[in-house]
Amino acid sequence: MKKIYIYDSTLRDGAQAEGISFSVEDKLRIVERLDALGVDYIEAGNPGSNPKDLNFFNRMSQRRLRHSKLTSFGSTRRANTHVKDDQNIKSILRANTQVVAIFGKSWDFHVTDVIRTTLEENLNMIRETIEYLKGHGKEVVYDAEHFFDGYKNNPEYAMETLKAAAQGGADWLVLCDTNGGTFPLDIQDITRKVVETFDIPVGIHCHNDTEMAVANSLMAVKCGAVQVQGTINGYGERCGNANLCSIIPNVQLKLGYRCIDPEKLAELTSTSRYVSEIANLAHNERMPYVGNSAFAHKGGMHIDAVNKNPASFEHIKPELVGNERRILMSEVSGRSTILSRIRKIDPTITKESPLTQEIIDKLKELEHRGYQFEGAESSFELMVRRKLGKDKKFFTVKDFKVLAEEPWQGANSASAMIKVEVEGVEEITAAEGDGPVNALDKALRKALGVFYPQLKKMRLTDYKVRVLDSSSATAANVRVHIESTDGEDIWGTVGVSTNIIEASWVALVDSIEYFLYKTVK
Amino acid sequence: MKKIYIYDSTLRDGAQAEGISFSVEDKLRIVERLDALGVDYIEAGNPGSNPKDLNFFNRMSQRRLRHSKLTSFGSTRRANTHVKDDQNIKSILRANTQVVAIFGKSWDFHVTDVIRTTLEENLNMIRETIEYLKGHGKEVVYDAEHFFDGYKNNPEYAMETLKAAAQGGADWLVLCDTNGGTFPLDIQDITRKVVETFDIPVGIHCHNDTEMAVANSLMAVKCGAVQVQGTINGYGERCGNANLCSIIPNVQLKLGYRCIDPEKLAELTSTSRYVSEIANLAHNERMPYVGNSAFAHKGGMHIDAVNKNPASFEHIKPELVGNERRILMSEVSGRSTILSRIRKIDPTITKESPLTQEIIDKLKELEHRGYQFEGAESSFELMVRRKLGKDKKFFTVKDFKVLAEEPWQGANSASAMIKVEVEGVEEITAAEGDGPVNALDKALRKALGVFYPQLKKMRLTDYKVRVLDSSSATAANVRVHIESTDGEDIWGTVGVSTNIIEASWVALVDSIEYFLYKTVK
Repeated sequence: MKKIYIYDSTLRDGAQAEGISFSVEDKLRIVERLDALGVDYIEAGNPGSNPKDLNFFNRMSQRRLRHSKLTSFGSTRRANTHVKDDQNIKSILRANTQVVAIFGKSWDFHVTDVIRTTLEENLNMIRETIEYLKGHGKEVVYDAEHFFDGYKNNPEYAMETLKAAAQGGADWLVLCDTNGGTFPLDIQDITRKVVETFDIPVGIHCHNDTEMAVANSLMAVKCGAVQVQGTINGYGERCGNANLCSIIPNVQLKLGYRCIDPEKLAELTSTSRYVSEIANLAHNERMPYVGNSAFAHKGGMHIDAVNKNPASFEHIKPELVGNERRILMSEVSGRSTILSRIRKIDPTITKESPLTQEIIDKLKELEHRGYQFEGAESSFELMVRRKLGKDKKFFTVKDFKVLAEEPWQGANSASAMIKVEVEGVEEITAAEGDGPVNALDKALRKALGVFYPQLKKMRLTDYKVRVLDSSSATAANVRVHIESTDGEDIWGTVGVSTNIIEASWVALVDSIEYFLYKTVK
Repeated sequence: MKKIYIYDSTLRDGAQAEGISFSVEDKLRIVERLDALGVDYIEAGNPGSNPKDLNFFNRMSQRRLRHSKLTSFGSTRRANTHVKDDQNIKSILRANTQVVAIFGKSWDFHVTDVIRTTLEENLNMIRETIEYLKGHGKEVVYDAEHFFDGYKNNPEYAMETLKAAAQGGADWLVLCDTNGGTFPLDIQDITRKVVETFDIPVGIHCHNDTEMAVANSLMAVKCGAVQVQGTINGYGERCGNANLCSIIPNVQLKLGYRCIDPEKLAELTSTSRYVSEIANLAHNERMPYVGNSAFAHKGGMHIDAVNKNPASFEHIKPELVGNERRILMSEVSGRSTILSRIRKIDPTITKESPLTQEIIDKLKELEHRGYQFEGAESSFELMVRRKLGKDKKFFTVKDFKVLAEEPWQGANSASAMIKVEVEGVEEITAAEGDGPVNALDKALRKALGVFYPQLKKMRLTDYKVRVLDSSSATAANVRVHIESTDGEDIWGTVGVSTNIIEASWVALVDSIEYFLYKTVK
């Protein structure tokens, strides 16, 4: 089976993304994870431009990677200098990696107008830099920056630059669509030409400025490129780099080539989420293969079909990439989805039971009022319990008062007083908080904690507010969505009201009730 | 110049996205915006499966669109029934749109295993449904669901289904990659075959499950398809539909075909942001063309090169799509834009004035705290006035108290007490409202109305809440955005706090102050 080499640049080109700034510790953790996934190359920094990166490479020299080759990155020498005196090249040698990636100019306009030297000198810079690094025993990856734009503008010169790299002894010729403006059919023509001309393996490096990065990378592979450069989650400057989380399964599952161990493919989703956690960016739910929504079904007809045969609306089995199918609750989801959830609580209920229709009617009414149970399946389950008479009364709230006032009292700008009753015993208490909802949340937990100490284990992890019909301004309906965890499970609840405190309150009480169903036997 | 028809399905297939639930009002506003952008077709709902959509189409019947054709969507008739008795088809006719889109099965496996009928009956369903709708004078778009998967499995039968649609009189044959698993070279072969075989214009409808939706759509256009279906921001089930925000500029700027008026292209970025606001989803910053980061430069060398010549690292001029270049981590960013706004208030201020730097620093600090002045330029202007010492004190709020309590008192579940002072005269009053913010809003207007009766002319038209860093749960920062009008102008203001009442309060006070600047001479 043909092997395609995966070259990860999350820690170098990915770190150019707006909002990303990796610490040395972050980088060490990501390297470990990428090595475990089994990518072939990890381009981890530019030691010449960034002293933090040199520190990172020093730390790495005490570690061994099982599979991946660590790679440092930098530019060809400057114009009209000696390569052995170049500070950037010295830093690269100090990084002491087995593999070195060097980028140079392929686009004549960049040579004359950006680095402002002669076309001839640019060829010398490429050849001499690679020659020098080969003399130090490095595996050298040559990145031909702006290769496609350069080729479109002056094909002879672009090919000359690759020839200079070949003469220098480059182990790889990597064609870069640096500005991300090239389309697949141009990638096809130009990559073919390069693969036919040179005896050196060819790689591809794409950016996503026209949403073509993955398609372009795959097209290059079809034309003979055997290395693909990209980043986890497609992180990178501007619109990002080619997304390895799409490329790896596309190459392996669709083209049938090998890039990582087949059993490692099931770690792709968790790797993607891990990297987004470390980068402190929200995971893009709609990402192909690895997104939370990638195999989520909402339309009733689609859900029925997927229940009959998943292949009807899924292009691969989600478990191949470590993801999973999700059936979303909504007014458009069919009776069978709703029934399967009802039966989790009471298996004796059938499609024909009058209660089934009652629950569907209730669901429609709630959705009409602005409820949305997608991601808030726990609130749906509690509603079903109440309808089925299978609910328990863990506590009663007798009353509460929430007060917010100006001038503000520092961080705790609101206070709440609450009285609850559990099995005939009343408890009254109060709490301050960061805003009225936070104060109420704290007071409720404090009061209930007297009876249910396990509430300490539970915490809210997410709080979202959506103003419905926002044109009614401050009297508009709001929907509050809360996510909670006890360290093992995550559950979501929802509340709707024109009063944001009441909407939050409903979601909050549902969240606690759901947890008590789990823990009180 | 060749014309490519843009078919927007944000309100139908886009609404299948997880987390999206458009109200009828939302839909009306998006239709208006899409019509202004100049898309050719707006597929706005499935009246047979969703009563809310039928309500929407009724509302639309009183409105005229300037450019777009409104389209309703539904399935072919059910197996072994009469088309005129089909409830779904009846709903479509009740929707009363000029254009109707009908989807049918092309993949033999779906016919036999999902809808469970014969291959022959499926052809009848397609032909008869289209024939019937043509008899009612409709322009009929035929969506061949799973066409590419169907073709790969059984090319003869897939082509038979298109023939049935052609016999029925379809005006368009749209090839759908419903599961999103097809690659560009397959799209190329199969689209060419269809375009050669039929005399009816061909469209393309792609999903993004392998990150190929945009590339596939463009490939189909290169092979003769003249209609592209997609959604704003690529919203849609699972990984989404083909993203029109990439497709429109790709077709128009890169292929050189015409799809919308060239001057309308500059509204693409604001349309994209508007739709994400209405959908209440965070705008994806890394989106090609329209993302906030799409033309953001971070690397030092890249910034130098872009300053020498933007074409060095930008594939198009950002203003063509209404976006702008951003230079990150550099005080020169946007200085001239900011300066022009400052000069509207004080024309004597220059680039070198120390106040200019102070305002830029303040702006950065506020943005860091979560403020966003896009659409809230009035709050920005008031901040500049305060910095320049050009502000007036129309009123002082001495103090307020807001109380919300349970059990709820009907609609008015909260009350507010407020004391204001205007030119040495104090006024204390109270009001009840639908939630704490509404109570406070009413009390403030009541108190100030004693001094400024013109406040009666002003009202809030929009109120939005976004939770920032939502993982801090109920203590998270929230941003409140308010839109107000006096019947002539519309202005926006913004406030940020961990306390939703304070955030609302800041935006509310700004809104009233801005109005008083307008009316008090």
